[in-house]
Amino acid sequence: MSLSLKSSYRMHSGHVSYYEHLSIVTGTPMKFSLFLPEGGRKVKKTLLWLSGLTCTDENFMIKAGAQKKAQELDMAIVCPDTSPRGLGLPGEEDSRDFGTGAGFYLDATEQPWSKNYRMHSYIMEELLPLLFANFPLDSQRLALSGHSMGGMGALVLGIRYPEVFHSLSALAPITNPSDCPWGVKAFTGYLGEDKSQWRIYDPTHLLEDIGYNGTILVHQGKDDQALTTQLKPDCIEAAATKSSIDLKLTLCEGYGHSYYFVASFIDEHLHFHNVQLEARP
Amino acid sequence: MSLSLKSSYRMHSGHVSYYEHLSIVTGTPMKFSLFLPEGGRKVKKTLLWLSGLTCTDENFMIKAGAQKKAQELDMAIVCPDTSPRGLGLPGEEDSRDFGTGAGFYLDATEQPWSKNYRMHSYIMEELLPLLFANFPLDSQRLALSGHSMGGMGALVLGIRYPEVFHSLSALAPITNPSDCPWGVKAFTGYLGEDKSQWRIYDPTHLLEDIGYNGTILVHQGKDDQALTTQLKPDCIEAAATKSSIDLKLTLCEGYGHSYYFVASFIDEHLHFHNVQLEARP
Repeated sequence: MSLSLKSSYRMHSGHVSYYEHLSIVTGTPMKFSLFLPEGGRKVKKTLLWLSGLTCTDENFMIKAGAQKKAQELDMAIVCPDTSPRGLGLPGEEDSRDFGTGAGFYLDATEQPWSKNYRMHSYIMEELLPLLFANFPLDSQRLALSGHSMGGMGALVLGIRYPEVFHSLSALAPITNPSDCPWGVKAFTGYLGEDKSQWRIYDPTHLLEDIGYNGTILVHQGKDDQALTTQLKPDCIEAAATKSSIDLKLTLCEGYGHSYYFVASFIDEHLHFHNVQLEARP
Repeated sequence: MSLSLKSSYRMHSGHVSYYEHLSIVTGTPMKFSLFLPEGGRKVKKTLLWLSGLTCTDENFMIKAGAQKKAQELDMAIVCPDTSPRGLGLPGEEDSRDFGTGAGFYLDATEQPWSKNYRMHSYIMEELLPLLFANFPLDSQRLALSGHSMGGMGALVLGIRYPEVFHSLSALAPITNPSDCPWGVKAFTGYLGEDKSQWRIYDPTHLLEDIGYNGTILVHQGKDDQALTTQLKPDCIEAAATKSSIDLKLTLCEGYGHSYYFVASFIDEHLHFHNVQLEARP
């Protein structure tokens, strides 16, 4: 499949580049951004970052300030877009928490979303192979993180595919989407009313159902306005405790939900992933 | 005058806060942002940052990634807006390089701009006194920097008021606005046709006319598309050489004009200012 470079910027000695390709899985053009540290030879470590509601492939690269540390650690960062776009489906543009910019990293089964809103398969079956085929990245040292809806996506993919993602963290993730307004709206719309079909996209239920063999790092702002209504870290904490899973959850005094918060803790996450990835044989 | 806090976000242990106040000088509401490092006691060092064309008080705080280093150095950062806004003057919204978002840090003398487009006096006579009256900042350790149009503004104010600004730098500044399209358009519109009135707002001419006793740090991307047409670092370099002024100009291979470039070198500028400000008695 053909990959088109839209723009590229030198930053912290490396390069932030924006790509587009026609996706077979979503049936639409899809965009992603890539930070490659300076070099040219193979980059040993890669972080896949999943963004939150309303974000694009740009937000993290512009606002998180992660590239300096990534360059120091010789780590690449990849940021896919948060949904297919421009399909003209009814209701696609009506709200910030459903449709465009709100793909929830799942494969929709309900009409009219099931044909294109397939972010889960897009990432696992198309984006990752494309990345490892086209860039000097090592598939054996791949970390995963994300923010809010993307934190949820990271936890879901990381728990379900530990053989693919070798280190896992999240910032302000939606931990129990089956039981919060954002999640119930999205899951009902994309997956239908049968809640048994929701469990494979719910981090809390996944920890209960299949567990996780490793450490999961999570930061959550205590002044986040979505803390008790949408994000509910106590849900995943309870599931982790019950299953003796090593969830390192830090509640951060005074921090909100925005990228001011993400930027404040992203270096700590990169450092965490670096240690995990470096420890691999 | 009354100062209104619009929003505040914890970041890197400190706080990014957005303020608005009614300006006597511009006759409009004016906004600025302020990063205060964690503490509460007096912050010894402050950087005033002047942004470029089309920017607001937000761009630097969101995109430059300077707060981590500022927190480490215990340095405050202040970012004023780039012009008055919303006056409804004819032509105010017509272009990205004149009117709204393009105040050029000067006091206009031409109609209809002369009543409100007075960013020079706004900063020197209103914003700085307001800052030192309302926040725990030390007026005796004040650094100045900026980007593009704001780099020009920083050089102009820094060269003209060395008793106010104790350290001076710029990123990709317009160095010789009297002789580039952006500058000629703005100066003609705001100051009229008489070029003798332009010299006090032109960094290259100011170095020729009054010199500078100290070091000026400048970074400029070599792949900046405005390099040879608008920014022309060779102009200020020639003036500095002629007058034996210590201009430390670095041309940065592969870097463009955007905040990817600013973010890449801002820590070096903060470090430079920190050394200069710490050296003061």
